[in-house]
Amino acid sequence: MQAILPFTISLCLAVGGLAKDPHPCKSPPLLEGKLALAIIKNKTFGIEKFAYNAFDERVHVRVRLDVDNKTIYSDTLVLYREGVAFEIFRHNQTCTKVHFKDHWKPIEIPRDAKFLSQMIIGSFSEPGDGLLVNNWSGKVEEPPLKYLITFTEFGCLPVYGWYDMPGQDVLGVSFFDIVIGVEDPNIFIPPSFCDKAELDIDRATSTFHDVLTRSL
Amino acid sequence: MQAILPFTISLCLAVGGLAKDPHPCKSPPLLEGKLALAIIKNKTFGIEKFAYNAFDERVHVRVRLDVDNKTIYSDTLVLYREGVAFEIFRHNQTCTKVHFKDHWKPIEIPRDAKFLSQMIIGSFSEPGDGLLVNNWSGKVEEPPLKYLITFTEFGCLPVYGWYDMPGQDVLGVSFFDIVIGVEDPNIFIPPSFCDKAELDIDRATSTFHDVLTRSL
Repeated sequence: MQAILPFTISLCLAVGGLAKDPHPCKSPPLLEGKLALAIIKNKTFGIEKFAYNAFDERVHVRVRLDVDNKTIYSDTLVLYREGVAFEIFRHNQTCTKVHFKDHWKPIEIPRDAKFLSQMIIGSFSEPGDGLLVNNWSGKVEEPPLKYLITFTEFGCLPVYGWYDMPGQDVLGVSFFDIVIGVEDPNIFIPPSFCDKAELDIDRATSTFHDVLTRSL
Repeated sequence: MQAILPFTISLCLAVGGLAKDPHPCKSPPLLEGKLALAIIKNKTFGIEKFAYNAFDERVHVRVRLDVDNKTIYSDTLVLYREGVAFEIFRHNQTCTKVHFKDHWKPIEIPRDAKFLSQMIIGSFSEPGDGLLVNNWSGKVEEPPLKYLITFTEFGCLPVYGWYDMPGQDVLGVSFFDIVIGVEDPNIFIPPSFCDKAELDIDRATSTFHDVLTRSL
């Protein structure tokens, strides 16, 4: 009888240890994928192909945006550490180079995010037909926004993001077709026809929003 | 040389046969799960636990809806074939019984839906961290609506639905925590305290929308 108690306690501790609470995590440092975005009040919708490099703090983004009755395309390589962005125009092999002032933000669940719930998209009743994800919420002071994000449990990959910028707009993002690693590392290197591009000092220092909407 | 041509053709046909186009399909006939819904213009949001029985054409739905500044709860068992619905109030063991006029609609990709694309939620770079889904669009004449739906490739399980009812509203639905089969088949049988419930003939014949919003 005396032996049973410590045994039972050990068993409970072991089982408790198997069911860990989800923890904030960082996505793998090299990713390629797509995302669908919707800027709600602005009635802007877009599909984006992205390549993400957390080692060098670079992203390459090719966007198709539908806003008002226009469609704009954009091919942009951002070098956060160097503070510049290249807008690439492959059809005529030209390039513009602008200051880029946003700080690098890795793809991750912030350390102060609040865990909301875990859920299964699809079902685990059939092999390969379910995806275990975690929902988190939080807020950021600068710029002021509240967010709801969903990441996969196993690989810490982004699935959804919902960003509420009070007084401004709401942005919804849906990630898909993610691959860990990149097929061609040259995607993070400005094309050779960008070598001659001079810094456009007449352009206001850009954020991602500026770069994406310059054609409007 | 002569043998190569038929061999090459056979190889191409074999490979082509492996890469099948997705086809409309029906979900498994017994499901339990949850869904999050948003009725956009009406600013209504809800979480629903549902049990679905396509053999007997019954659904049992427990809903929490947030609309205006109110929260309403509803526990409803619908017997489509019998044309009645039971509104269940477990806290005081009472029940109301109303006519229910909606026709049975199975959870499925309609035969005339248009295949849009296949995508991976998450990634297949890590085992268990990706979900293969298909996107479909279509329209319905009665009631008039356009839809965009996403179902899993392997199990034909619903993931998202987006329903645009022109001139009325837009409904977004997100399914999760689906299990094939039901834990307790009594969930499709009216509780014993519903036996005495008389058909409420003063109530207009109900649709799901009526049942859910009666408390407003």
